[in-house]
Amino acid sequence: MRDRLASLSAGLDELGCKALLVLAGSAQDSDLAPFLAGPAHLGDCLLVAPRGEAPRLAYLSPMERDEAATTGLALLSPADLEVLRWAGEHPELAPFLARVISRAFDLCGLKPGRIALAGHGPAGAIQGACALLIAEGWTFVPGNALVLATRKRKQPAELDGIRGTAAAACDALRAVARLLAAAVPDGSTGELWLEGERLRVRRLRAEVGRLFAERGLEQPRGNIIAPADEGGVPHSAGTPDRVLFAGESLVVDVFPRGRLFADCTRTFCVGKPGEPLARAHAAVRAALEELHLRAAPGVRGWDLQELVCDRFGAEGYPTPISEPGNTRGYVHNLGHGVGLDLHELPIFKKVSGAEGVLREGDVFTLEPGLYDPAAGWGVRLEDLVYLGPDGLETLTPLPYDLDPKKWDGP
Amino acid sequence: MRDRLASLSAGLDELGCKALLVLAGSAQDSDLAPFLAGPAHLGDCLLVAPRGEAPRLAYLSPMERDEAATTGLALLSPADLEVLRWAGEHPELAPFLARVISRAFDLCGLKPGRIALAGHGPAGAIQGACALLIAEGWTFVPGNALVLATRKRKQPAELDGIRGTAAAACDALRAVARLLAAAVPDGSTGELWLEGERLRVRRLRAEVGRLFAERGLEQPRGNIIAPADEGGVPHSAGTPDRVLFAGESLVVDVFPRGRLFADCTRTFCVGKPGEPLARAHAAVRAALEELHLRAAPGVRGWDLQELVCDRFGAEGYPTPISEPGNTRGYVHNLGHGVGLDLHELPIFKKVSGAEGVLREGDVFTLEPGLYDPAAGWGVRLEDLVYLGPDGLETLTPLPYDLDPKKWDGP
Repeated sequence: MRDRLASLSAGLDELGCKALLVLAGSAQDSDLAPFLAGPAHLGDCLLVAPRGEAPRLAYLSPMERDEAATTGLALLSPADLEVLRWAGEHPELAPFLARVISRAFDLCGLKPGRIALAGHGPAGAIQGACALLIAEGWTFVPGNALVLATRKRKQPAELDGIRGTAAAACDALRAVARLLAAAVPDGSTGELWLEGERLRVRRLRAEVGRLFAERGLEQPRGNIIAPADEGGVPHSAGTPDRVLFAGESLVVDVFPRGRLFADCTRTFCVGKPGEPLARAHAAVRAALEELHLRAAPGVRGWDLQELVCDRFGAEGYPTPISEPGNTRGYVHNLGHGVGLDLHELPIFKKVSGAEGVLREGDVFTLEPGLYDPAAGWGVRLEDLVYLGPDGLETLTPLPYDLDPKKWDGP
Repeated sequence: MRDRLASLSAGLDELGCKALLVLAGSAQDSDLAPFLAGPAHLGDCLLVAPRGEAPRLAYLSPMERDEAATTGLALLSPADLEVLRWAGEHPELAPFLARVISRAFDLCGLKPGRIALAGHGPAGAIQGACALLIAEGWTFVPGNALVLATRKRKQPAELDGIRGTAAAACDALRAVARLLAAAVPDGSTGELWLEGERLRVRRLRAEVGRLFAERGLEQPRGNIIAPADEGGVPHSAGTPDRVLFAGESLVVDVFPRGRLFADCTRTFCVGKPGEPLARAHAAVRAALEELHLRAAPGVRGWDLQELVCDRFGAEGYPTPISEPGNTRGYVHNLGHGVGLDLHELPIFKKVSGAEGVLREGDVFTLEPGLYDPAAGWGVRLEDLVYLGPDGLETLTPLPYDLDPKKWDGP
């Protein structure tokens, strides 16, 4: 935490800001959580971190006093903030928020000046509150990227959290593989049957959901269980009613959250895949295996993206470099950091800054994929990895096989 | 939907705005979802609704084209918006967002003017993007409350969604009651034992989580399973490791989400409650039973809050009216609307506007409670109700009994 606060202060200095203000609707806000000792059950709250000083947490309901106390932060209580007074004077959210922020600044000894603004909340109220504070002499600059940068390198407790969630993601994919391996294709239609019913996306989604819930995990962004043409579009979630067929691709991408997220994808095919699907799967698997060898401290995410585009391009697949905006072939970025947000730093885009360079302490995905929505298939293989002091560690050590029956090996 | 758009246009007219802009990080954003035909798996997106015209949805990733198409809205594609161009020119989020918004306004035929801003997102980027657009002649006023007002009256599909989620909440509370009824107190310590183990908060939370997951529901805000002194503070979530004891109060408050939320609370006591707990429970139950008779179209939420304060005050309990900021006795508001957000309209605060008046079509909670954190108990009973054409309908028809053994009646 000390490192993180030092990095925050350096960042504030660079932006010429005297403090960071984080607005949050809950303690899970990804810009607030990095400063808390642990999870807490809080509603609307805000954090003020004057440059070089310990941050303070302002909570708005006296009912949350015990939860706020678990955060380990110096607190500004509703009474300190005069919440009842402002709520009485200002029934609308924007002026109420402006008064609470102003009072919190005052209690932190801050005079009007330049503030880095982070956190998340209702757009209109944020804009409205800032407009009122600007009229009083305050200036705001975007600060979300600053907090994002301070949490790129994971702390030990965060890494532990991601490890646990990643292990659950692996359990979920193994459970899906078991159900698929047990499914029997109808000889005439090719429909998959399991336990006397047609096997539908819904059945797999229920199994995944049950398994995460038993482990205390949530899926706030859902999941992707996308057969055939649906899997040919990387962000299509998959229709619950859809019946699965032998010979089809099935992309299963899970991204559960404990305190932090994990993210992992495998692609299955029950029965014999067509030649284009089998060839694409082999290409994606070989690319991912090479990426595991290439990802290292100092390497740029964009270098890896170029490498994968070169590989796929040489095999005749369109890529975002050869055909920007393409929807067939390789159509997305190679990966993304994972932590309190599902998508954070490092990034794999063409950028020149530190946000695009892999460093020790980073946790990120590597997820090459190939897609042909018109032909009705998609393949994506995604590992979550940790760049540790001893090199790259795979947090999702699962088989890559298309055939779920091969997952149940020794 | 037509009613909702008419109400939106009237609201824009009143604010002197030429359009509504909704910024969203997903299709679940509570200011965006009211305008969609159904759930969709979308990332960052925005909606522009020029006054009196059909809204348009701008999505930012071509991978989401099929998901965007399911919303039933006219679409602005990443190509229309020139997303690749702006992403190349502006690596930082605020100016990128400003360019995308500006382009979306342009495609909707809007010239610089006054815009109502709603939705949710990163505070710094929202403030930064608005600052750039203000410099180009646009003006923003808070618009979250406008969207909130348009979705106070639930549509049939929304009511169906809440009904289903409320039924699952009831199942979860019945499951908790069954586990508690099966638990056996240790004769000397009073600890509850179940299946050869001490019964802990964790066990109940796992059961609740499993049950919701099987029904495809999430708990994005967690839940409250708070024994004794923890239940004495209304928003304390309950410590997972905590062992439950006979004679203690146990507040169980679940608020799962399907497409929409539901919310329900019961309070249990295994074995014989102490006199203060038994008396408080009887007072809370009688208050809730009276509230079911009093909640009707045209009644103000604040009227009901006053009624409950009068009742509890007459029985010697402090209330927020007799002792503002109190933490013992009755310490919170009486209820809140429930829908796409866990807390929405109507509200039960002392306000003069339509947001505080119960109307046909509203879905809200009624949740009187009494607390004594120092003495180590809390009682809350919360029903979710729908004010329909035939009067008040209880969406959470469960027993109120403290004793879980009484829940299993005929």
